[in-house]
Amino acid sequence: MEKFTIKDLYAKPTEFADKQVEIEGWIKTSRGSKKICFIEANDGSFLKNAQIIVKNDNPDFDEIRKWPIASTIRVNGTFVSTPDAPQPFEIHASKITLEGHSNSDFPLQKKEQSYEYLRTLAHLRPRTNTFYSVFKVRSMAAFAVHQYLQSRDFTYVNTPIITSSDAEGAGETFRVTTMDMNNLPKTEDGKVDDSKDFFREKANLTVSGQLSVEAYALALRNVYTFGPTFRAENSHTARHASEFWMIEPEMAFADLKDTMEVSEGLVKYVVNYLFEHAKEELDFLNSINEGLIDRLKETVNEDFAKVTYTEAIKLLEESGEKFEVPVKWGIDLQSEHERYLCEHIYNKPVFLTDYPRNIKAFYMRDNDDGKTVAAADLLVPEIGEMVGGSQREEREDKLRAKIDEFGLNEEEYNWYLELRKYGETVHSGFGIGFERLVMYVTGMANIRDVIPYPRTPGNAPF
Amino acid sequence: MEKFTIKDLYAKPTEFADKQVEIEGWIKTSRGSKKICFIEANDGSFLKNAQIIVKNDNPDFDEIRKWPIASTIRVNGTFVSTPDAPQPFEIHASKITLEGHSNSDFPLQKKEQSYEYLRTLAHLRPRTNTFYSVFKVRSMAAFAVHQYLQSRDFTYVNTPIITSSDAEGAGETFRVTTMDMNNLPKTEDGKVDDSKDFFREKANLTVSGQLSVEAYALALRNVYTFGPTFRAENSHTARHASEFWMIEPEMAFADLKDTMEVSEGLVKYVVNYLFEHAKEELDFLNSINEGLIDRLKETVNEDFAKVTYTEAIKLLEESGEKFEVPVKWGIDLQSEHERYLCEHIYNKPVFLTDYPRNIKAFYMRDNDDGKTVAAADLLVPEIGEMVGGSQREEREDKLRAKIDEFGLNEEEYNWYLELRKYGETVHSGFGIGFERLVMYVTGMANIRDVIPYPRTPGNAPF
Repeated sequence: MEKFTIKDLYAKPTEFADKQVEIEGWIKTSRGSKKICFIEANDGSFLKNAQIIVKNDNPDFDEIRKWPIASTIRVNGTFVSTPDAPQPFEIHASKITLEGHSNSDFPLQKKEQSYEYLRTLAHLRPRTNTFYSVFKVRSMAAFAVHQYLQSRDFTYVNTPIITSSDAEGAGETFRVTTMDMNNLPKTEDGKVDDSKDFFREKANLTVSGQLSVEAYALALRNVYTFGPTFRAENSHTARHASEFWMIEPEMAFADLKDTMEVSEGLVKYVVNYLFEHAKEELDFLNSINEGLIDRLKETVNEDFAKVTYTEAIKLLEESGEKFEVPVKWGIDLQSEHERYLCEHIYNKPVFLTDYPRNIKAFYMRDNDDGKTVAAADLLVPEIGEMVGGSQREEREDKLRAKIDEFGLNEEEYNWYLELRKYGETVHSGFGIGFERLVMYVTGMANIRDVIPYPRTPGNAPF
Repeated sequence: MEKFTIKDLYAKPTEFADKQVEIEGWIKTSRGSKKICFIEANDGSFLKNAQIIVKNDNPDFDEIRKWPIASTIRVNGTFVSTPDAPQPFEIHASKITLEGHSNSDFPLQKKEQSYEYLRTLAHLRPRTNTFYSVFKVRSMAAFAVHQYLQSRDFTYVNTPIITSSDAEGAGETFRVTTMDMNNLPKTEDGKVDDSKDFFREKANLTVSGQLSVEAYALALRNVYTFGPTFRAENSHTARHASEFWMIEPEMAFADLKDTMEVSEGLVKYVVNYLFEHAKEELDFLNSINEGLIDRLKETVNEDFAKVTYTEAIKLLEESGEKFEVPVKWGIDLQSEHERYLCEHIYNKPVFLTDYPRNIKAFYMRDNDDGKTVAAADLLVPEIGEMVGGSQREEREDKLRAKIDEFGLNEEEYNWYLELRKYGETVHSGFGIGFERLVMYVTGMANIRDVIPYPRTPGNAPF
């Protein structure tokens, strides 16, 4: 008798009809009477369970009925099609064995446990339908990102996680050290001697791979990073984590319009990939997160809107809406503004372009108006900002002046300036917060519920 | 006139014959006479260059000849097939413009610069043929890994980078902190107060995602990690870096034999993928790393060997070879032993199985002999160990006893023990050092030359 996964059985029910099959799995539910026992088993290969029927002619019937939830079982039996029942088939067990014990205090027995509580069970929560679906979707979304970019000749570049540079000078960083904190080496003036640390200087966790990956765009044309980044910010919102994954495509010979095309294409590709490969998971998520599938259908069927920052400010001012942070040209838009734009004015994803230069990073290319930069952020319903992109300042003299103007240490950016000194090239790129994308495609409202083991201030267990 | 990449032109030379084309790119070489100038240009889309012909009827001819290497140009011209020349086509420029300057001191002009020197130019070295090829291959190998595993229903799980657990208790870790080292908070007894740190306890960079991903295997069956891991070891070999990427597949309902099947399948899939998608790059790498392609062909065409550790020790003892570390049962095999086995005895990749339990990690499943564990490492020519796999100890009582025996803190592993308490399940997995795999498929001898910005003791620039 060949071993099958439950996914196999669901994939070709007619092929298995009346055949003998063997599966392994975990007991999800067990109920019945003195005559018959119904066990729903899941083997992790598929969201849905296989229904197992055990009759009381089984000599171990009384024992089997008592096996606790989460026990590991092996079942041999007949595959019986049940076209009129909620599930398409049952397995009538001829033999069923306990392969591994479980325990009656298994904490996931009750339905409707809160997400907050389940976060304390990060090692067990993927066994629930919700988190099974979220993490299947997360995995497929990651693969779809790679597939989209690789099929367009983007080269995947693993930029460094530990770095002695602090990237854009933005964002609090985590220090990485091997020094004994209770016995720190000191310099003559009594300060900590960083030159005695592992890397012989201060080193941090990266906040972005963009600058490093630009060097690769200027050699391999289309490139991208996809890796973890870190922010040591003491924020406790539902959209921020201390550790999260970013996708950062970067393209030589490409301008701002190209970043919008590629990022719109990428988001739509991911959604279409999920429609094709994660049907059961999306259906389940749609049943708990209302409107999810409709929103995703709109995402792939409509062109994203485009509006300049200046025009958006006007629209917000004219909306008559009271915002917590008052709207005026020059402000850094808050989540409330971003969401109002895409949820109330456009009702779909919106690219906001040409932001004031003073609220954006030094590396963005100055527009000719002297006030704005060639930036384009993608705002999406429910989430707010999902993508931040820009054309990079490729003009060596202007970049050098801006590094000075922004108060950055020019020496630290020598290598970055050399990328312009040796082949000034129009180039552009964008970053997608991968968890924001996963929240968008799963409908989950808290970033802690789309990361296997989320890290936030005060929380790094497991 | 449509813009094309040089890759497009190489892909369909007959289609473009005698057509007008426009390309952008960087000058790689420029030479000629007073009558004609030959410029080789590359746009990053393809390893090979496009040859541009500029004649002295161009009014800017004298300027064009002086454009330095690495300058960014745009060329309009006629595509001329040259079936008898080394390159399949030339572009006879009707218009050529300088889009971005370069400088005559561009440091990559000379051939035969040492790899050591090029490491100091990590931001420019991808512009060389060697590193262009290495990093294209690295990218495709990464994608092939995802494709192989996803097509076999493995779910990609991003295990945490920052962790308060120290995983297997093996390997030196990097501490992650936001405390001000010059002003550390202290407890009453004068020690550093770790509870005041960002995560309210000590936190480190992960050395392996395995334990965390096991929780997911016991919910989603086939899972894998693919992310950065860290070792704060002061080693200066050609095979060790402080930051490197690992692939860690983990499978429920799978034993040691399954890990060998999947890891052999994975390595072969990656090599076949490269044969199909990276022909030019492999040809180039074969020209600088002798024997590469032959070795890779053998890799896909032959079954990997399998031998127990105990048998391997006998073979090494009987070989008559003098090793620096003498061979006897119970030793941790050194690189010299591993390479002797696969390069001299088997001449191909070899799985070594059933290692002594005392030299392996606590989570490996004890064999019935009481002396060995169900482990299987894959050793490959030129590299040594590339894969480390094992069946995991799924028996709750035995795992608990081993945690105690190995002197680990049982409390810290409570959640890991709960994975057994609630559904004891046979499961197995393995880890591949991704850089080792990239070294194997590129023939590069130093791990620093397969990582974009390598981190080693004393080195974290850029």
